[in-house]
Amino acid sequence: MPSISEKAQLMPASPIRKLVPYAEQAKKAGKTVFHLNIGQPDIETPEVAREAIQNTDIKVLEYSHSAGFESYREGLSEYYKNSGIDVNKDQILVTTGGSEALTFGFMSCCNPGDEVIIPEPFYANYNGFATAAGLNVVPVTSSIEEGFALPAISEIEKLITDKTKCIVICNPGNPTGYLYSKEEIQQLGELVKKHDLFLFADEVYREFCYDGAQPFSVMQLEGLDDNVILIDSVSKRYSMCGARIGALITKNEEVMASALKFGQARLSPPTYAQVAAEAALKTPQSYFDDVIAEYVERRNIMVDGLNKIPGVFCPKPKGAFYAVAKFPVDDAEKFCQWLLEDFDYNGKTVMMAPCAGFYSTPGLGKQEARIAYVLNKEALKEALVCLEKALEVYPGKI
Amino acid sequence: MPSISEKAQLMPASPIRKLVPYAEQAKKAGKTVFHLNIGQPDIETPEVAREAIQNTDIKVLEYSHSAGFESYREGLSEYYKNSGIDVNKDQILVTTGGSEALTFGFMSCCNPGDEVIIPEPFYANYNGFATAAGLNVVPVTSSIEEGFALPAISEIEKLITDKTKCIVICNPGNPTGYLYSKEEIQQLGELVKKHDLFLFADEVYREFCYDGAQPFSVMQLEGLDDNVILIDSVSKRYSMCGARIGALITKNEEVMASALKFGQARLSPPTYAQVAAEAALKTPQSYFDDVIAEYVERRNIMVDGLNKIPGVFCPKPKGAFYAVAKFPVDDAEKFCQWLLEDFDYNGKTVMMAPCAGFYSTPGLGKQEARIAYVLNKEALKEALVCLEKALEVYPGKI
Ligand SMILES: Cc1ncc(COP(=O)(O)O)c(C=O)c1O
Ligand SMILES: Cc1ncc(COP(=O)(O)O)c(C=O)c1O
Repeated sequence: MPSISEKAQLMPASPIRKLVPYAEQAKKAGKTVFHLNIGQPDIETPEVAREAIQNTDIKVLEYSHSAGFESYREGLSEYYKNSGIDVNKDQILVTTGGSEALTFGFMSCCNPGDEVIIPEPFYANYNGFATAAGLNVVPVTSSIEEGFALPAISEIEKLITDKTKCIVICNPGNPTGYLYSKEEIQQLGELVKKHDLFLFADEVYREFCYDGAQPFSVMQLEGLDDNVILIDSVSKRYSMCGARIGALITKNEEVMASALKFGQARLSPPTYAQVAAEAALKTPQSYFDDVIAEYVERRNIMVDGLNKIPGVFCPKPKGAFYAVAKFPVDDAEKFCQWLLEDFDYNGKTVMMAPCAGFYSTPGLGKQEARIAYVLNKEALKEALVCLEKALEVYPGKI
Repeated sequence: MPSISEKAQLMPASPIRKLVPYAEQAKKAGKTVFHLNIGQPDIETPEVAREAIQNTDIKVLEYSHSAGFESYREGLSEYYKNSGIDVNKDQILVTTGGSEALTFGFMSCCNPGDEVIIPEPFYANYNGFATAAGLNVVPVTSSIEEGFALPAISEIEKLITDKTKCIVICNPGNPTGYLYSKEEIQQLGELVKKHDLFLFADEVYREFCYDGAQPFSVMQLEGLDDNVILIDSVSKRYSMCGARIGALITKNEEVMASALKFGQARLSPPTYAQVAAEAALKTPQSYFDDVIAEYVERRNIMVDGLNKIPGVFCPKPKGAFYAVAKFPVDDAEKFCQWLLEDFDYNGKTVMMAPCAGFYSTPGLGKQEARIAYVLNKEALKEALVCLEKALEVYPGKI
């Protein structure tokens, strides 16, 4: 029997993989499980997008241009201009999700064996995309005590070697919800300029900024056109994760030309989904206002509620729809499994994503779990009660 | 300015890339261009699939399971059983096009530096997927004189080294239209068994078999469950290239588990497209009967017509919707460019895909071009007249 590849062996499984069977068992046993573990919002996809699909009259479902519909890219460039990001349609490659944009970006910019510096904790699938491209992730640790702010630039600079090819940030962050300040982004800009690196910014949560905070995009950095690569997606913005439409955006013509070659090999992004994504550009502002208002309330319920539970600490994030909390437990993985396997409060329990999988450094995040507030407020309140009751009886409490 | 990767530099551009500007110019100059160069059928997508999309009532467009809808995989396994291929839903990974299935397959099975043997001429994007995975393509040449039959097994065996990890075939073939016989497939099966290799079969044109010929799938080989990987797609079957739905199918559990890890990293295949693809499983047999009848007529018009032009030779393929023809010209690339740039017959001309890009061995296919009969019969007849007239005056005729 021929053996599988080394890459395949190195490919990480999802951080919640081990918990899935316990969640299934819990449900079989009749428990209600509050899924705080997922990145799939419960918000409705905008009506304009859904209607566009119901009204499509495509007779022959053809490949699109490998870079995506020209009309969609033009519409996107308008969207970016309205967000203070000045790009034209040729600086946009429409991809099959932000996921594919990350893969094309890594493949275009980095050689196997190159190093990628990423502030941890980070979106766990960066590991998968890096592994697929043969790259080594070099983490720089941000701490829950400082709300996951960018580590000191001097700490990051220390990690730069002649193998370092890029720095990857997620802003606002998954799993932390942390929103980088303009100053932090500018410092990163200076650093990549100084060391001739690429700066990847995954801004798929751009719309989700709270308390009046404004996101500062890497595309707004000056003099960094050749260094900066923006990763974007409609998945979260319009709650249309299943569309699988994202984008790689850069003013570096060489990177764009090579990303397009990867794009041509896979022919095109999905056509129906582009119809929906293009229509979604017409989503009224009121949709976002409602969504943001909803998430702010949820965040407040969740984060304030967590901090009221004895021994729990959760910094209040300004973006995305995640928060990382520190629990007074021996091991968050064990705690999460126990919640599903051995605990219920009135037949209800909670599933969270243990944070160890979001750290690259072994041993970190052992007491932390990521909470996605993608459930309605009532459910969040019930989930909080479960967590409080659980911590009163969890045998591994410390 | 940071440099792009070596991979990006090696990524091949499309074989017709250079011709595209000439085609655009020709159209600007008012010429009608018959596009025999594309793999995008003009056939309508089945009504059941189109209606399913218009009738979708998805409120929240969610990620699907990373392996694809369970109901779709169950439906697919029925489809395969009806085609004599015995697979269950867990042996099917739904991918974003056959393209992604090829990438996941290469990444799961091969290490960078490994060798992949492919009969040439072959689908040019195999080069791209191999490059992305860091693999070296080792071609084994099939010849137009023998209708592109499988080269002698001894020729293939000679190419096997300790770096060889798999053999890739396309059946029926793009660009050749060649349909491998059961015996050829069995010989390949014995060879991969003997040398402990993977056998990838790209069977995306399975439905397009003519003159009563029956395709023999690699999945029908006995005792090769751990070696065989089937690549499939709805793109051509249902003329829904823009859906971007394919599949990787294997009974090798280790390969499936690792392909799934690549699948989990990119989250899911497109949701709307899966709705359409699942509905397409209900396409009535009459649809295929009509399509096949149409393609047979087109093939006959095209291939018989080509062979009537003095100096042109075109073997009659039994599958797909392509044919490779040999022209009495100095260089098919020059000829194809000249057709667009310098020629027209009553304001009309032809675009073909020069074959050099389908060969890996430099210099081969210089007089050959691929013709896709994806236009209606009248257009094909007119295109033939153009080609005949063109060869009467082409300065590089030999
Ligand atoms: C930070 C981040 N980046 C990228 C993605 C990938 O999203 P998609 O491929 O759906 O665009 C996600 C999805 O959860 C994410 O959280
Ligand atoms: C032989 C072959 N394999 C695979 C593909 C990829 O098809 P898709 O990614 O649309 O499924 C094509 C498309 O033309 C093809 O001709």
